[in-house]
Order: sequence, then C-alpha cells, then structure tokens
Amino acid sequence: MLSRSQIQLVQSLKQKKFRQKYGLFCAGGDKVVRELLQSSFELHQLYALGEWLQENNTMLRGREALCTPVSPSELKRLSFQDQPDSVLALVRPGEERDLLPTEGWCLALDRIRDPGNLGTLLRIADWFGLAGIYASPDCADRFNPKVVQASMGSVFRVPYCSANWPEVLRKDGRPIYGADAKGERISTLNTGQSGILLIGSESQGLAPELEELLSAKLAIVGRGGAESLNASVAAGILLARLLNCV
Amino acid sequence: MLSRSQIQLVQSLKQKKFRQKYGLFCAGGDKVVRELLQSSFELHQLYALGEWLQENNTMLRGREALCTPVSPSELKRLSFQDQPDSVLALVRPGEERDLLPTEGWCLALDRIRDPGNLGTLLRIADWFGLAGIYASPDCADRFNPKVVQASMGSVFRVPYCSANWPEVLRKDGRPIYGADAKGERISTLNTGQSGILLIGSESQGLAPELEELLSAKLAIVGRGGAESLNASVAAGILLARLLNCV
Repeated sequence: MLSRSQIQLVQSLKQKKFRQKYGLFCAGGDKVVRELLQSSFELHQLYALGEWLQENNTMLRGREALCTPVSPSELKRLSFQDQPDSVLALVRPGEERDLLPTEGWCLALDRIRDPGNLGTLLRIADWFGLAGIYASPDCADRFNPKVVQASMGSVFRVPYCSANWPEVLRKDGRPIYGADAKGERISTLNTGQSGILLIGSESQGLAPELEELLSAKLAIVGRGGAESLNASVAAGILLARLLNCV
Repeated sequence: MLSRSQIQLVQSLKQKKFRQKYGLFCAGGDKVVRELLQSSFELHQLYALGEWLQENNTMLRGREALCTPVSPSELKRLSFQDQPDSVLALVRPGEERDLLPTEGWCLALDRIRDPGNLGTLLRIADWFGLAGIYASPDCADRFNPKVVQASMGSVFRVPYCSANWPEVLRKDGRPIYGADAKGERISTLNTGQSGILLIGSESQGLAPELEELLSAKLAIVGRGGAESLNASVAAGILLARLLNCV
C-alpha cells in the first residue's frame, strides 16, 4: 500500500518549486523509464506494476531496494498522465553544465515556454546528435513532467546549459543562425561543420539583443496561409538541412 | 449572465460524441478565432470579453447577434485551456470532401492519435500550401479542441478528407512516399511536382498494407541516441525538402 505522503510527494513534483525543494523530478512510462535506467541520472524511487518489474529485472539489478510494486489503481493515483503507463520513477537531476562542447552543432532556445515544444526540441537535438542545448532562464523547466514525456527520454542524454545566458552565446565563437521568413535559403549559404541554431519564443520570436548575434537568418519558404511554423518543427527542418541529413 | 445550459453545452464539446450530436465544435483564443472569422466556416456563437468585441467589431459586422459579452471569470468557466484567452467560439464543421485535388502535394496520415500532432500537421500543411490531408478514420478528430488550438487556425483552411481510406490512396495516381530511417535520401531521388507524403502512427509506424503503396522510403539521417523523431517534425523536415523550401 502506498502511503499518503508518498502520493503527496509525487503529486507535488508537478510544480517546479517542489522539484527544486526536494531535488527530484518524475519520469513516467515504459519507454521513458527504460531510457532513464540506461542513463547516468540517479534513480531515487520507482513505482511499477509487478509484471513490469519482472520484465525489466535485468535492467533493475542492484536497484531492487528502490522499487515498489503497485496496483494499476495506485499507479493511476500517482500518475500525471490521463492514461498512465505501467511505471513511474522519481529521479535526481544531474548537475547542469556551465558550457557545452565548442565543436559541432548546438541549439539555443530563447523563451521556449511550451513544455511540449521543449521536450520535442530535446528529442530533435538527440536525434541529430547535437553537442547540446543552451536555454534562456525563462524557458520551460526541462524537468517539467510534460517536457520529460515529450522528450521520450532524450532529456537524459542531451547536454543542457542555462547558465550565463546570453553571454555564453556572445563568447562561443561559432556562427549563430536564426530562423526568419525573410532570411536566406540554406542551399545558397556556405555553412560549416559547426554552429548554433537560435530558436526564438513561440509568440514573440527572437529578442532584439539576440538578433544582433546572428551570422545569418535562414528561411523556410512558405506557400500557404499559416503565419508561422511551430518552433520545434522549424528547428527540425533547419537542422536537418544544416547537418545535411535529408 | 451565462446560463447553466450554455456552460454545459460548451463543456460537452470536449467530447467527440457531443460534437457530433450537436454538429458544433469549439475554437478558442484570439489568433484562432480571428482565423475562423476570416474563413468559410460558419460561426454559431461567440463568447468574448467586451474589449475583444470592441477591437474586432469590423470583423464581426453582420454577426453581432451571435456575440455574447462575458466576464473573465465566465470565460474561464467556458474555456478548456489552463489560461483562457479573451474569446471562445462555437463553430459548425463544414462538409468533408470525398477527394482532394490531384495536383500538387498532400499529406496522408495513418493513425495519428495525438491531438497536438494532428494540429501541428495541419499547420505544416497550411504553411507549405499543400492540396490537403487524407486521414485514416482512426486519427484524432480534427475538431478536438487541442487539435484546433495546435493548428493555430490552419484547421479552417486546409482541405481534409477521411473518406474511403485507404482506397483513395490506391486510386490517387501520385507517387506516395513514406518516412523510414533505412530509406533513401531525398537528395538522390528524382521527385516531381506532386506527390503524397504518408506519415504513420506515432507508436507503430505505417500499417503493412500501406507500406505496399510506397514509391520510395525517405530517410532523415540520425546521428544520436533518439529512436525516432516526432511524427509532425518528421513530416515538416521531409516536406520542406520535397517542396524545395529550405
């Protein structure tokens, strides 16, 4: 039986202030938790259906003491999702980096506030093997449960840094690119083996002091009625082309 | 003052069965409702803050009788969003098409069940000016409030057809492409001025009977740890390249 305080702790982790207070966040669902268990993040506690624990016992070896079998109805009380999966984990966030590697490609995110977008951007960064993500401090919290979920586990792999924004971009040295409907086509530009793609706020675009840092603005030619593309879709399109992956 | 039955009607439209029963769906938020008012969709009822009605009175001309001023707290009771915007509209769905134009590019969606993904795919189709979307009947409902929201109004512009799936694809005549990590690179293919990009289920990929219809499988080269890209991001990347927009 789960205790009331266990349920309250898990529920409180929906909110950033409690994630910070307890130094914990939640990761739910089979795929995401399996990614967690193979990562360098520290498992604090795991609640799962008995059959899930059995199926994954190899991966859990040495961490059995952290695992609590629960019934489907108990899991439902713990879960944030409408349709809870078979497992939920409490995790300690690793230390954040001050700097990312200066080779290769990075994403830089300016005020990306939608958790679904941030999670999808983590997944994109992971897919393309980026060196990491620089994020402005007013981005969504990467340990928000919706971010963790949308990242499909990529949050455990992608180096992430929100320190010293935006000075860190000024000092980086790599060319910085931004998206702009009136920008240049990537096919006409001579882009190299490394750079930073800067993605602006969903509603306001790039802050003016960041626009000054751009080496070039990159266009995705539109032919229809929509005013803009979703931030994560635009990032995916530009990265796929910049990294010659399509 | 809003009546209890007005609030109940709006709340009921979260569910597909009530959207079908009443022949209505909800569109919320300034941007989305302004797109609606400029579209061919029929406005049934509009609830908005007084200042919003004043600011948009030109666009509302001739439809004043359908508009009800509400207070912020009344709007909050009507709204589906955590942070309700200034306006919410009830809309009649237009008639669905049996066929899309056979020129140009279309998306075809196989079991896209996440409403956020479907909305983002509508927005992508609109941005690239596609001829429309073919959808399998088990896709999310395009009038689900989360779809309407994520589409940012594109749901009012993009021709949409879920009839006669998948025969409609067999008879179409255009080349059909699918995404596959082991597929070919678009840069090596000779793609023409028209075609269909087929996007499979988020969790299961393309159904086997649809794979048989493909002219070619298209790769987005991955270099990192993620197993896959989000369905709408993959669609955006491939369309941008197929339509030579990046």
